[in-house]
Amino acid sequence: MTAAPTAPTAPTSPTASLQADALVAAIAAKGSPVCVGLDPTLEQMPAAVRRDDPCASIELFTRGVLDAVAPAVPAVKFQSACFERFGWRGVRVLEACINQARGLGLVVVLDFKRGDIGISSSHYAAAAASAGAHFVTVSGYLGLSGVEPFLAAGLGAFVLVRTSNPDSSAVQSEKLATGPTVAEHMAALVKNLGEKHRGTSGLSAVGAVVGATQSREAGALRAHMPDQIFLIPGYGAQGGTAEDIRIMRRASQPPEKSGVLVTASRSVIYAKANEGQHWLEAVGTAAKNLAHEIRDVVA
Amino acid sequence: MTAAPTAPTAPTSPTASLQADALVAAIAAKGSPVCVGLDPTLEQMPAAVRRDDPCASIELFTRGVLDAVAPAVPAVKFQSACFERFGWRGVRVLEACINQARGLGLVVVLDFKRGDIGISSSHYAAAAASAGAHFVTVSGYLGLSGVEPFLAAGLGAFVLVRTSNPDSSAVQSEKLATGPTVAEHMAALVKNLGEKHRGTSGLSAVGAVVGATQSREAGALRAHMPDQIFLIPGYGAQGGTAEDIRIMRRASQPPEKSGVLVTASRSVIYAKANEGQHWLEAVGTAAKNLAHEIRDVVA
Repeated sequence: MTAAPTAPTAPTSPTASLQADALVAAIAAKGSPVCVGLDPTLEQMPAAVRRDDPCASIELFTRGVLDAVAPAVPAVKFQSACFERFGWRGVRVLEACINQARGLGLVVVLDFKRGDIGISSSHYAAAAASAGAHFVTVSGYLGLSGVEPFLAAGLGAFVLVRTSNPDSSAVQSEKLATGPTVAEHMAALVKNLGEKHRGTSGLSAVGAVVGATQSREAGALRAHMPDQIFLIPGYGAQGGTAEDIRIMRRASQPPEKSGVLVTASRSVIYAKANEGQHWLEAVGTAAKNLAHEIRDVVA
Repeated sequence: MTAAPTAPTAPTSPTASLQADALVAAIAAKGSPVCVGLDPTLEQMPAAVRRDDPCASIELFTRGVLDAVAPAVPAVKFQSACFERFGWRGVRVLEACINQARGLGLVVVLDFKRGDIGISSSHYAAAAASAGAHFVTVSGYLGLSGVEPFLAAGLGAFVLVRTSNPDSSAVQSEKLATGPTVAEHMAALVKNLGEKHRGTSGLSAVGAVVGATQSREAGALRAHMPDQIFLIPGYGAQGGTAEDIRIMRRASQPPEKSGVLVTASRSVIYAKANEGQHWLEAVGTAAKNLAHEIRDVVA
């Protein structure tokens, strides 16, 4: 149940920062700050992997995709909901797939958006660390004391700051009496917590989820969080563009210090195969193209 | 995977409101708006139920507690984190225990604090409905479009509004430029969404999580949410008092329309047995005492 390689001597273990370093190293090795989002749904996967047992289908599909994308990208993001919807059997598949991803040398982001009081967060952290995740996504609405147990367990965390769903502004874009928006206020909390968990590259293991379609506000968020890695979902299929990414990146940095981790899901995992091409070849090519595209964008 | 008894014809199924009615009826039958929080941890449970396999311990303990409290209380709240920390085996135990709780006629609140964009929320909703939950706890930071899939799946939802952890004020008590706090703003969103999901009692299937220790702000929250059921954790062990509950309840109403569901966990499930008394007898007595206490508080 413990994730830290050494017993922690301080209230928060310093090892969370190693996750930031590992991610930076993985991006440097692959040359591009991208992440393939694994959101498997039965309706969208190729007929070739569909079985009577939905969990068998999800597993076959996800394992194939992992093998196909691993050569091209440094990281994958598992959408926990797609697995959890099948109950404990789905969670068992999720754990097996995370294990495979680790074996392939991929940095694993577990996108489960938990956010609870400290003691419950510590349980979620134990679960994520045992499963083999390197990073998790976390909600900060309860305050960032609910994020600290994840860091104490040796995990990096991306805190929800500004999301790309249609009604996200209803809370996140509200202006506080003191000036900043709720999202900017959350950004300040993230930056503050992140100071103590900076890796050798200067980037922090406490990052932020910032949707690709929020570039109008993203310049301000980058100013609030200069040393945070932005996990950026919504690129491609959801409408995020290269220009959006350019606004969010740390300028004049090599890819591994650009402070972004651009995530695409559907455009990669459901890439259309050409006549006679195996579906996994199409997935591999889409991953490679994504990596090249984003490498050029952050350059 | 579908929870609604009839195929929905409107974008959101009307059946979520039935959950509010079922909870009201269960409270009326037991005479007190209380809920036992099931947060099993190995460290705190009696030696008698500890086994080598942690999941066997959690299951034995939780099943015993369910039997012991069912005669006295209308509802239980499962803290998902305590089960998830043991991976898929823990989730399997959770599902088995939820099934038992339903069989005992208890209203089941699944406290898993999920909050994601619509499509991911619909997966979480399918999981919760399949497992047999009647209500879930949900985060609204992404906007309440992420809450709607739970209602569409026929579940009631308690949205996180004001929590009782030490640093909860860091976000929730910030004042908006327009006047209300972030929590009050969230309350207004909850009230608005809840209008469409009102049961025959007038209470809505969209409720709010409001910590028992937040009574200083709770009067204002009640004014913002007159027809919401407040799920109130933190009574007893965490410091919430009878006076706190009095401020939060809808005044001059019978228990089932008091608009509160007061949750106690440790003070019930880890109740100390007297010399010669079986631990489950102590748990049953503590549940009965809690129910009487809260019945008198809301009267």
